[in-house]
Amino acid sequence: MFVFLNGQIVPKEEATVSIFDRGFLYGDGLFETIRCYGGRPFRWADHLERLERGAAFLEIPLPFRKDELREQAARLVERNQMPECLLRLTLSRGTGLRGYSPRGAEHPTLVMALHPAPDVPGELPPKWRTIISSFRLSTNDPLAQFKTCNKLPQVLARAEAETRGADEALLLNSDGEVVEACSANLFWVGKNGVCTPPIAAGALAGVTRRVVLGICPELGLVVQETGIAVPQLHGTEGVFLTLASRGVVEVTAVDGQELPRSPRVREIHSAYVKMTGRQYD
Amino acid sequence: MFVFLNGQIVPKEEATVSIFDRGFLYGDGLFETIRCYGGRPFRWADHLERLERGAAFLEIPLPFRKDELREQAARLVERNQMPECLLRLTLSRGTGLRGYSPRGAEHPTLVMALHPAPDVPGELPPKWRTIISSFRLSTNDPLAQFKTCNKLPQVLARAEAETRGADEALLLNSDGEVVEACSANLFWVGKNGVCTPPIAAGALAGVTRRVVLGICPELGLVVQETGIAVPQLHGTEGVFLTLASRGVVEVTAVDGQELPRSPRVREIHSAYVKMTGRQYD
Repeated sequence: MFVFLNGQIVPKEEATVSIFDRGFLYGDGLFETIRCYGGRPFRWADHLERLERGAAFLEIPLPFRKDELREQAARLVERNQMPECLLRLTLSRGTGLRGYSPRGAEHPTLVMALHPAPDVPGELPPKWRTIISSFRLSTNDPLAQFKTCNKLPQVLARAEAETRGADEALLLNSDGEVVEACSANLFWVGKNGVCTPPIAAGALAGVTRRVVLGICPELGLVVQETGIAVPQLHGTEGVFLTLASRGVVEVTAVDGQELPRSPRVREIHSAYVKMTGRQYD
Repeated sequence: MFVFLNGQIVPKEEATVSIFDRGFLYGDGLFETIRCYGGRPFRWADHLERLERGAAFLEIPLPFRKDELREQAARLVERNQMPECLLRLTLSRGTGLRGYSPRGAEHPTLVMALHPAPDVPGELPPKWRTIISSFRLSTNDPLAQFKTCNKLPQVLARAEAETRGADEALLLNSDGEVVEACSANLFWVGKNGVCTPPIAAGALAGVTRRVVLGICPELGLVVQETGIAVPQLHGTEGVFLTLASRGVVEVTAVDGQELPRSPRVREIHSAYVKMTGRQYD
């Protein structure tokens, strides 16, 4: 396995960063996880645009142009002969002075690494059982809209899910609404169409979320951004998650209680899979 | 410069971790910053106890016994000939499977690195000008009581302070109370004694905070844990911060407005400096 590290493609074993890298010290960085289909990164432009917005907010300059990164990503997929993969891109602030101040950190670290794709998309969406995590997301956290490397709540919520025999955890915001899953955005099918919590509620601006918001009207489904409390999930017609690594995932249960299942979820999944086969940027 | 890394003392240049270390990927770890005076780590036991509590919460096993770490810390100070230093100890979950789940990460990373101490304690406490950060801490965050490697709000708040010509930023919690600084606990001198926000308000259980809470009664000062809003800071007799790297730091201004100065702050500073010269654990 080869990894792109600061301009060079190196064997995995040599892909290391200093213990003084601020990514390691403080989670002072951002990442993207991009699914490659047939060797081509799906929605590359959307992922890189989000990375750029986060980097501007954190004031970490991108050390490579986007087209250079795109080329290097292609080289990496080729070199690893892994056309079906997940590409994780990490940008950290690099090393600087001691302490929280970002001063003196002038050489950001940029890594791209590949992982085997979790599976080939099938006719039906994957199914996940979920729990409600005890960890909450802050409704007004200005960092919530970026994919930062501060992910301990998500790590611990996922561990809670696994301890309780579930696949994923749903997280509430400080207003008590279900806002997203650890690694995915939340959607549900209602009487009037498809709903998802708004970004303003603390949801990450997911790339797959955006794709699905675009697909729904093509299927004749009205989309609406609105909040939802846990008990209301049981009154929907079906619940699903969206994430770049898996696409559309059906949620079959929450906290051990089975959820309604909607044929709409399968339709949206099919439309998403079709799109991954023909459209990339 | 030499660094302790997973059982070995290695030159700084060789002190690296995998790009797949979860500390780098997610800030999935904890740290402590310990001041060594005359080669001896001050309040080592308190720091290690907090680390242990955090490690238990995150379910990261400590890969070395505390007495082994203490010995290695002494070796490191000796090897670097740096008796006046800051020792940063970092524990991360190490490498595991892809994704948030901590499963498969069975070899935590443990690092100890030294930095020159910022200064020798003088007769008067250092003075810092502060601002109120736009970033807020969540009042009910269960992670707030541990020193995790998820420190982006602190990094960005410190950057705000520096942009505005200040030394440090004060952070409000979601209830609008001043809870702590990026790298320090907050205290103020009131008519009835010395006050500091309670841990339940979202304040970190600072080691230096605890030392100062012990010193005050010896100086005849009553201590009280209570909240404070920004305007009330101006009605105090004096405001100060506590942190392991500096001890007691007097806060001279907030958002450009000068604060009252109390001789009590200097007394507490003197008592703290005296203690660092005679008592360690």
